[in-house]
Amino acid sequence: MTDPSRSLLAMRTTAPLIQNITNYVAMNIAANVMLAGGASPAMVHAKEEASEFAGLAQGLTVNIGTLDAEWAECMVLAARAAQDHGTPWVLDPVAVGATGMRRALGQRLLALKPTVIRGNASEILALAGADTRGRGADAADGVEAAEQAAHALATQTGGVVAVTGAIDFVTDGTRTARVANGDPIMTRVTALGCALTGVVGAFITSGPIFDSTVAALAYYGLAGEVAAKTTQGPGSFQPAFLDALYAMTGPDLDEGARISTT
Amino acid sequence: MTDPSRSLLAMRTTAPLIQNITNYVAMNIAANVMLAGGASPAMVHAKEEASEFAGLAQGLTVNIGTLDAEWAECMVLAARAAQDHGTPWVLDPVAVGATGMRRALGQRLLALKPTVIRGNASEILALAGADTRGRGADAADGVEAAEQAAHALATQTGGVVAVTGAIDFVTDGTRTARVANGDPIMTRVTALGCALTGVVGAFITSGPIFDSTVAALAYYGLAGEVAAKTTQGPGSFQPAFLDALYAMTGPDLDEGARISTT
Amino acid sequence: MTDPSRSLLAMRTTAPLIQNITNYVAMNIAANVMLAGGASPAMVHAKEEASEFAGLAQGLTVNIGTLDAEWAECMVLAARAAQDHGTPWVLDPVAVGATGMRRALGQRLLALKPTVIRGNASEILALAGADTRGRGADAADGVEAAEQAAHALATQTGGVVAVTGAIDFVTDGTRTARVANGDPIMTRVTALGCALTGVVGAFITSGPIFDSTVAALAYYGLAGEVAAKTTQGPGSFQPAFLDALYAMTGPDLDEGARISTT
Repeated sequence: MTDPSRSLLAMRTTAPLIQNITNYVAMNIAANVMLAGGASPAMVHAKEEASEFAGLAQGLTVNIGTLDAEWAECMVLAARAAQDHGTPWVLDPVAVGATGMRRALGQRLLALKPTVIRGNASEILALAGADTRGRGADAADGVEAAEQAAHALATQTGGVVAVTGAIDFVTDGTRTARVANGDPIMTRVTALGCALTGVVGAFITSGPIFDSTVAALAYYGLAGEVAAKTTQGPGSFQPAFLDALYAMTGPDLDEGARISTT
Repeated sequence: MTDPSRSLLAMRTTAPLIQNITNYVAMNIAANVMLAGGASPAMVHAKEEASEFAGLAQGLTVNIGTLDAEWAECMVLAARAAQDHGTPWVLDPVAVGATGMRRALGQRLLALKPTVIRGNASEILALAGADTRGRGADAADGVEAAEQAAHALATQTGGVVAVTGAIDFVTDGTRTARVANGDPIMTRVTALGCALTGVVGAFITSGPIFDSTVAALAYYGLAGEVAAKTTQGPGSFQPAFLDALYAMTGPDLDEGARISTT
Repeated sequence: MTDPSRSLLAMRTTAPLIQNITNYVAMNIAANVMLAGGASPAMVHAKEEASEFAGLAQGLTVNIGTLDAEWAECMVLAARAAQDHGTPWVLDPVAVGATGMRRALGQRLLALKPTVIRGNASEILALAGADTRGRGADAADGVEAAEQAAHALATQTGGVVAVTGAIDFVTDGTRTARVANGDPIMTRVTALGCALTGVVGAFITSGPIFDSTVAALAYYGLAGEVAAKTTQGPGSFQPAFLDALYAMTGPDLDEGARISTT
């Protein structure tokens, strides 16, 4: 496994243009997180231009957080365009188990073989058709409970699946890695999981998918640790987190990353 | 009237899942405010899933801030589902007097008997059919000018009406309370009224409606006072405000709440 | 050319109600920037109410950042209503060169003669039909490269065109000005260009268009300089920037503005 700094620096060098179809709650913070990290985010979701834009962008992320029928169609169109162009794309199946509409859309997007799926344990379980206690966007299951589901999804799509939580779990169906970076205060800030999806989308444009995904998680979690050290709650955490994403150097990342592979 | 800390702690213990149909400006800050306070917000607005989700959630808030025809229908559907499930729901009639579309929607939602209505004086006046000088989302009338309108609305719906401003006024048609917490800088941060609606929605899921509404206003205003004390403007206020919502203990709230009942 | 403080104080005195049709990423920060500055923003975009609201508002801004077919129609309706009412309006042609949908909408809006066009160099070039290297919302061209295009657009619309970048360029087809205020960190915070469009929209409601536009750019850039001096990255910059917009006095602005006219 390559050093995570290699992925970070490769991403910063290319400053990839990433098209994000994400939810209204996440749009601003996701764009700010990606800009702080060094990527170039574009929030483009119209049916009329999603396919065309997918030809321009180096990567695509699709997040089903705030949904309606029109947006659902656009997500499918954009994912199909990404598949056609060979553009890597990330699926973030927010609250996919909560309603019939979400379950159906989750399966349609799964069939388009996302390069990476990034979700919490409840979402990964629901996407794989397993039982889950998840309700909304928050996880009600531990990461370990979703490892088998993650393996199954990775095998089904030929891609990478990342289950994020206290200790993240990543697999491509063969290899697995765990990333222990992060801080509990991150669960008290909305859309940080969604914004992480954008960072994963940026990292995987410039290196091997599995390694880049793991590096993105370590980078993100480590920035969270740095920010939590100097702040008193979820409000002051946010600006400090963006500053930490911006300031982190390659050596910082390699030194602070807590990655274990099996 | 019970101590406000009782409402705060009851809410934090249950961490209620609250469905919010709110405006684009407010979504992120409302979710962050609710997470900082201890609730579990979900922003779900699609016609296809709003009713289904209303069966999962402990509470619903409907805010008409950014509107189109589709969203208006969804708000009505979700409010009706809440009524059918006996789920408490809060109406935030943003700028309801500004256009014919808003006036019509306001009346449709009013007919679905919101558990709580939370608005500024101009909005409460407009919703009650009285004259108002309000233009956009900002109040042009003093809270006192809307007391009679609030009484009338509470009597009409059988619910609670909260008029927020320099000194908030709350009534259920019989009892009244005034809450003097807050800081003027809060009017220079967008969507803080909308985010308060989310907090009211969370509080009323775990206690008597009138008392919980009053407690939510005191909690929110007091956190604003705490944040204003250590900051220099509307920018630094925001993170400090979220930190204060997060850090406030029951004793802090009981000591700082400035509630008077009549 | 009048002192920029005159424009700032005139705007603060009237606290103009500005209708903004802007993108999802920008809505919150644009509203907060405008509130911090002293304007009264309203985010109103429904087809059903956009025209009616244009009769209430003192100004309108139209930003094509996040687009779909419905929103495109609404932008045209609102711009037409502004034109009919003689209300000044600002066009922000975000990523106008990226897709066919954007190019077509840009031309329709241009035909409605925006009072001010505010964009980065790539956007101004694309709107004028010139070659550009721009991809998404970020500029890939220098400001100088767009000066001729800006002149052509100003002549075509009879309005003012502002090309913002390291050194902003403003022209009404006859006069030109350059504004050297600002800080590079501003390019690492999303939607600051969009939020500036709102500030321009507020300034031009209360003074001569050319002078007010230049004053808005100087005010905005100078607040960025102030904020950058005391912060460590794009996260802490944001709150400090809002504080600086809020705290800036007329004398601060006149002293710090770096405006040159030709």
